[in-house]
Amino acid sequence: MAGSTYGTIFKITTWGESHGKALGVVIDGCPAGLPLCEEDIQLYLNRRKPGQSTITTPRKEDDRVEILSGVFDGRTTGTPISLFVPNTSQKSSDYSEIASYYRPGHADYTFDEKYGFRDYRGGGRSSGRETIGRVAAGAIAAKILKEIGINVMAYTRSIGPISADLTKFNRDAILNTATCMPDRLADEKATAYLSECMKQKDSSGGVVECIISGIPAGIGDPVFEKLDANLSKAIMSIGAVKAVEIGDGIMASSAKGSENNDPFFINENNIYKKTNHSGGILGGISDGSNIILRAHFKPTPSIFSKQHTVNKNGENIEVEIKGRHDPIIVPRAVVVVEAMAALTILDACMLNMSSRVDYFKDFYIQ
Amino acid sequence: MAGSTYGTIFKITTWGESHGKALGVVIDGCPAGLPLCEEDIQLYLNRRKPGQSTITTPRKEDDRVEILSGVFDGRTTGTPISLFVPNTSQKSSDYSEIASYYRPGHADYTFDEKYGFRDYRGGGRSSGRETIGRVAAGAIAAKILKEIGINVMAYTRSIGPISADLTKFNRDAILNTATCMPDRLADEKATAYLSECMKQKDSSGGVVECIISGIPAGIGDPVFEKLDANLSKAIMSIGAVKAVEIGDGIMASSAKGSENNDPFFINENNIYKKTNHSGGILGGISDGSNIILRAHFKPTPSIFSKQHTVNKNGENIEVEIKGRHDPIIVPRAVVVVEAMAALTILDACMLNMSSRVDYFKDFYIQ
Amino acid sequence: MAGSTYGTIFKITTWGESHGKALGVVIDGCPAGLPLCEEDIQLYLNRRKPGQSTITTPRKEDDRVEILSGVFDGRTTGTPISLFVPNTSQKSSDYSEIASYYRPGHADYTFDEKYGFRDYRGGGRSSGRETIGRVAAGAIAAKILKEIGINVMAYTRSIGPISADLTKFNRDAILNTATCMPDRLADEKATAYLSECMKQKDSSGGVVECIISGIPAGIGDPVFEKLDANLSKAIMSIGAVKAVEIGDGIMASSAKGSENNDPFFINENNIYKKTNHSGGILGGISDGSNIILRAHFKPTPSIFSKQHTVNKNGENIEVEIKGRHDPIIVPRAVVVVEAMAALTILDACMLNMSSRVDYFKDFYIQ
Amino acid sequence: MAGSTYGTIFKITTWGESHGKALGVVIDGCPAGLPLCEEDIQLYLNRRKPGQSTITTPRKEDDRVEILSGVFDGRTTGTPISLFVPNTSQKSSDYSEIASYYRPGHADYTFDEKYGFRDYRGGGRSSGRETIGRVAAGAIAAKILKEIGINVMAYTRSIGPISADLTKFNRDAILNTATCMPDRLADEKATAYLSECMKQKDSSGGVVECIISGIPAGIGDPVFEKLDANLSKAIMSIGAVKAVEIGDGIMASSAKGSENNDPFFINENNIYKKTNHSGGILGGISDGSNIILRAHFKPTPSIFSKQHTVNKNGENIEVEIKGRHDPIIVPRAVVVVEAMAALTILDACMLNMSSRVDYFKDFYIQ
Repeated sequence: MAGSTYGTIFKITTWGESHGKALGVVIDGCPAGLPLCEEDIQLYLNRRKPGQSTITTPRKEDDRVEILSGVFDGRTTGTPISLFVPNTSQKSSDYSEIASYYRPGHADYTFDEKYGFRDYRGGGRSSGRETIGRVAAGAIAAKILKEIGINVMAYTRSIGPISADLTKFNRDAILNTATCMPDRLADEKATAYLSECMKQKDSSGGVVECIISGIPAGIGDPVFEKLDANLSKAIMSIGAVKAVEIGDGIMASSAKGSENNDPFFINENNIYKKTNHSGGILGGISDGSNIILRAHFKPTPSIFSKQHTVNKNGENIEVEIKGRHDPIIVPRAVVVVEAMAALTILDACMLNMSSRVDYFKDFYIQ
Repeated sequence: MAGSTYGTIFKITTWGESHGKALGVVIDGCPAGLPLCEEDIQLYLNRRKPGQSTITTPRKEDDRVEILSGVFDGRTTGTPISLFVPNTSQKSSDYSEIASYYRPGHADYTFDEKYGFRDYRGGGRSSGRETIGRVAAGAIAAKILKEIGINVMAYTRSIGPISADLTKFNRDAILNTATCMPDRLADEKATAYLSECMKQKDSSGGVVECIISGIPAGIGDPVFEKLDANLSKAIMSIGAVKAVEIGDGIMASSAKGSENNDPFFINENNIYKKTNHSGGILGGISDGSNIILRAHFKPTPSIFSKQHTVNKNGENIEVEIKGRHDPIIVPRAVVVVEAMAALTILDACMLNMSSRVDYFKDFYIQ
Repeated sequence: MAGSTYGTIFKITTWGESHGKALGVVIDGCPAGLPLCEEDIQLYLNRRKPGQSTITTPRKEDDRVEILSGVFDGRTTGTPISLFVPNTSQKSSDYSEIASYYRPGHADYTFDEKYGFRDYRGGGRSSGRETIGRVAAGAIAAKILKEIGINVMAYTRSIGPISADLTKFNRDAILNTATCMPDRLADEKATAYLSECMKQKDSSGGVVECIISGIPAGIGDPVFEKLDANLSKAIMSIGAVKAVEIGDGIMASSAKGSENNDPFFINENNIYKKTNHSGGILGGISDGSNIILRAHFKPTPSIFSKQHTVNKNGENIEVEIKGRHDPIIVPRAVVVVEAMAALTILDACMLNMSSRVDYFKDFYIQ
Repeated sequence: MAGSTYGTIFKITTWGESHGKALGVVIDGCPAGLPLCEEDIQLYLNRRKPGQSTITTPRKEDDRVEILSGVFDGRTTGTPISLFVPNTSQKSSDYSEIASYYRPGHADYTFDEKYGFRDYRGGGRSSGRETIGRVAAGAIAAKILKEIGINVMAYTRSIGPISADLTKFNRDAILNTATCMPDRLADEKATAYLSECMKQKDSSGGVVECIISGIPAGIGDPVFEKLDANLSKAIMSIGAVKAVEIGDGIMASSAKGSENNDPFFINENNIYKKTNHSGGILGGISDGSNIILRAHFKPTPSIFSKQHTVNKNGENIEVEIKGRHDPIIVPRAVVVVEAMAALTILDACMLNMSSRVDYFKDFYIQ
């Protein structure tokens, strides 16, 4: 099955393995006339780069994007935009040992069961490097959304037991701390916690929260294509995500209706909700409040302590994974969550353009 | 946009509103030769019927399904199966008042914003009755899965603050208690809790857990069509779901790698995991363990206590919702979760049949 | 595989067999706010009814449509429109013999090979009655297109060797002759030709031509989703069609470039072509001229003369098909061609709404 | 809208413009375990290369393919295969003049109407170079089909008024003549005809015929996804195709049923047809005979004689197109037709694997 294509109108197809020649993405269905240059995309890719601090892998991945098609005279032409990121610093020798066994928590075993064999170098297609295509495409989606006032912002909400205090929300901290937390005190504590994890040859999970602001009411669809359903798929498709929450999320299941309902108010023809337990979506359709979602990431499965597993000869063995691995996935995943959210929201906005006969008539009859 | 179709090979399209003439579903892509009768489907529909206890709405919805096409001589023909459920007991007069304002927590406002107006009778298309088509189609998917030894079982994991104790798991209780909890003591406590909610003119949220057993390793796809991503979409597309967890779910984000990784073991050529933090999915592909997911439902938004909202004249008003409403969605949603999981797993199993060239050759060359 | 769904945004799913309980269609993605009643659809269905003349089957098929969902207060709500047409006059006894052998030119053999068995009553799903759902949905698509000035008109271009003379084009004749030819003299000749066919226990092929007028330039897509590619699929999906032509069609392959190119001219800022060899499509995108296509239908395969075939016992046999069959498919197929063209054009128009960033911005920023 | 993706399970996405940096294709859903190297693909690409004779453009397009992903240790991994073909010999200066006007018969005008502007260099995305991605992907599809005994072979059936005599069918001639005709005498006559066209600064249309042999009965689907419907879309999506025929094609519309029906016969449990008017498809499903289709190509629109058109200033002008252009598209399109047919047949074969419950059970229960 073809699992590497996402979206209906704004449709992306990613390709590439951790240690292949390159990775990339084709964006088809991008509207014509958008000013676009490689720097627009590079800024997003830089945010998922490793080697930027003590808490990310010391691997150097200097991922430079090249636009191969779909842009002419500095603007998108409406035809497929092919983005290309060469793999420059991958050394296959680092990974030769893992060919012989199944790493716990990784997709080695499931790939073998599905396909009969696998590209074992650095995880192949199941590597986190697969997200390069998502982020590159998401940069374009986010740029288009900004044109209509929709902004997508994600940050690290928690790392292991350490949560950001949102009453001290500091936007600068998201881009300028290694944890991507919007709270410098939490960043410090989380950094200490991660150092301790690393000392113990262990890793940590964490939570990314994403806020979509400026979205008008009425976007999304009832039934199977609910906006929250599509956001959940988008976010859960990021490797290592194990839970997705919308609005109050898991808290809603222990709440009462009187607590969870958001009353409507009107002020000068503007309908609004004072609370936002719904997380901006009612019945699968945006309600005009901020859309709020959280992605729960499991700890990096590559840990340096001893683990039990099975090798290719069918023997029970103990292994110690080597190499360079992030002690936590979350800070580098923040921009991936933003990308997937932007792609989903943009597609929903495009599909919404024909929701009323009057919209259709207005478009074609001037 | 067309939001009422779900699935790639096993594709269903649902239709119908709460107070229209009928509801139904068309199942296209069902393999030929499956023995099928109306009773197969009715058994599932009966499980979502209201009026069965003190904790579901006293509305009578005697939903009888009729097979209109796609079955001949007692077997499916491979052509579309059209299932039809007439609306027999809906009284539009009950709902005339709600036409005039937006019920908090419901999709009234968002439908108006998207479509310009709405069928306000009983929630129209956003009603829980929309799930009739899902359940009817899911009954067929579950029947096919059983043929290959895959079983999908859901139950109520918690209601408000009351959780089932799984060490006292009692399968009979799922089908024979009003709460659908697999633990009779929790059922009693939850029933008392719900009675108290009703007295307070309030409602409660809850959690449905779903176990998919017997699924072989290797089902699902990398990247965007991960099995957990598709399950998340399927489950989040059920009205009132606000969070989805796979395996350890939200616990994974505060765990360490050494806790979260499931070591592999082998015994007589059989690879297995002693623990199942992953919930049966690694890298988007089934790992041979049970798939475990949880859906967090918000409380029923229709509560009888006074609420603030806005009416069609643009005035801030207070309302008290009338009519007959479940104090909790969860028990009736158990079978809906099963249905959506079955549809998703079946489609993934079908798509998996061409994952290797050898499978393809074996199929066509005898 | 699910083969009964058509369209991306305006998506239809048909169901039903010749001799089942009913046939129908679900239209999902219809914009909200369109005035719609059963009579709008019935007018189209009446045009495909048999029993209206000497040259159509004397079978009575009084196909009355019922709207089951998706319309409220006389307008579409944006949710799925379920249309239902009961089978009232089918007698299964007429068809019992054909269960035992494969009718030449029919899908009996291929259905058995694909599915292992078949609903043999009246052709089951491969019957011409399958087009009821297409026509019903096409009526709605045509109604929406008319709102923006696009008109879809088909007629019988030829029957066997008899062609309509388009210099004598008479629009009334299309709806008021049994042949649906736009030329009363050709209608007379064709009627005589068909009488002769029937006397010889034979049947005839013919050609339907379809003109789509009022379509603006710029609709359709490059590469795989070319407007002519999608029209070809739509038309070739009608049973018995064996060739599709766009514009000059097969004549283009023996022409020279100097003959086939349509020069552009401009008059008061209006770019136009004096000739229309292209049939209104260049590079897969509408060029502002009328779109012209032709569908070549094979003769009705059910003929009353003796034919060779094979029976279920694996014996070579001779058969004489009985029952009531049209000597030609074409006149009843005219409205089916219109329906499929309308569905295709409407979907393309909807998908075109996000082709430019400026369109997208204008839609969302007032 | 995203128009550059084709297929459901075996899904390809092409990208690239005539004068961009490169062209390519991503193949997603290719089964794992297929031996694949660049030479497998290069052989197909070489067949669409120009500059090989007096009747193709003297432009040199040395299109070398590189595999960037999806192949490991010489075999496909099941993950996306990215193929990359750099544009090496395109000179943008050759095309600067055509930026100022609309070439008759080309997509210049329609692209401008759809997108607001266009990449005018060499036709941009509407160039014949767009087919590089199709051919590269088609090479892989054809290789898989050969594994199960299905062969796809196309050739030039006619050029202008000159038709190949199939009673003198010579397979070697297809690959070894400049016209790709399977008849050396016709090749000579056609070459002379084309020389004359070129002298007159004109171009010629022609017909490609394609034979798919070895396909079992039962492939394809009823209703909208008929095998002939999908083949028609596939073929009509190739630039310059104006008509598609299946089997007897346009001849069927003037035939009688007694002529057009193919009687069935049986011999040693083998059901067959002595004639093949149907072209191997009945009711949208393969009937076990060869599938036969014909694509009618219009003449190359770029001709050197004087033509009327409109320029960017809104003036009526006369132009003489310069540059290097094939006097006929057909010989280079032969392999494109093969590619599109192979892609379509392969996808249908994959989708067919779940057509019966017994197939599904046999696959999962050993």
